[in-house]
Amino acid sequence: MSQDKSIAEERETGLQLMPKFDDKGLITAVVSKAGDGAPLMVAHMNREALDLSLETGEAHFYSRSRAEIWHKGGTSGNVLKICDIWVDCDQDAVWMSVEPKGHGAACHTGRETCFFRRIKTDDGLTKLEMTGHSPLFDPKSVYGS
Amino acid sequence: MSQDKSIAEERETGLQLMPKFDDKGLITAVVSKAGDGAPLMVAHMNREALDLSLETGEAHFYSRSRAEIWHKGGTSGNVLKICDIWVDCDQDAVWMSVEPKGHGAACHTGRETCFFRRIKTDDGLTKLEMTGHSPLFDPKSVYGS
Repeated sequence: MSQDKSIAEERETGLQLMPKFDDKGLITAVVSKAGDGAPLMVAHMNREALDLSLETGEAHFYSRSRAEIWHKGGTSGNVLKICDIWVDCDQDAVWMSVEPKGHGAACHTGRETCFFRRIKTDDGLTKLEMTGHSPLFDPKSVYGS
Repeated sequence: MSQDKSIAEERETGLQLMPKFDDKGLITAVVSKAGDGAPLMVAHMNREALDLSLETGEAHFYSRSRAEIWHKGGTSGNVLKICDIWVDCDQDAVWMSVEPKGHGAACHTGRETCFFRRIKTDDGLTKLEMTGHSPLFDPKSVYGS
């Protein structure tokens, strides 16, 4: 058995956390709401963001646009308290079940969820429709314009 | 207002599907179970996989390792029927709520979910523990060894 194969097998079946970071040093991080499992957001973590999330119990991400660690809710108070965190079979994604604090808004638009638009296809025509999630706070008053 | 800014705003607030594919032509695709919102899997879609998913109502992905379109369940029968599909604020991720068909297994290991290991940190030591999802079919008999 080649070394690559045994690492892949250990990653897939073992009980060691061996995140498979991509060529940019990132894994995918999915967030759903504890209780009803509602979709909240998808972001990325590097090693430091994952370590900070595990140490503090609050979701930390790596912001690709700002190229820095991002403590979710650090500015807005909308911290995501991690209730449960799982890793997937090939360890290139984690999934967190969270309790949203503050305004209860995971999205920078002020809404509970980033997934506030449904994709609909009718007669071959694809459109989005709002799911009815209204902003829970005014982003401008928190982040500036 | 620059054209980039107006595209970003339209993408974030508008009712047009304008997926923001990355430099490899991909968006993230998250899958949870209809009903209880349980985590199932995370994969990627290119334009064709997204179009096929919307046209057929069954989840299609782009397999990065095989570099091809992947009709989930095409081999195993474990098709994921899309009940609902949403796009996130910056349109670089979709989230599908699905009804798993066949054996009801989303993971290639035969389990219902790819997220069958919980990350636990005790006394600064991080380990994985099995969530108790047993295989629902024998992958070897479906995919070969």
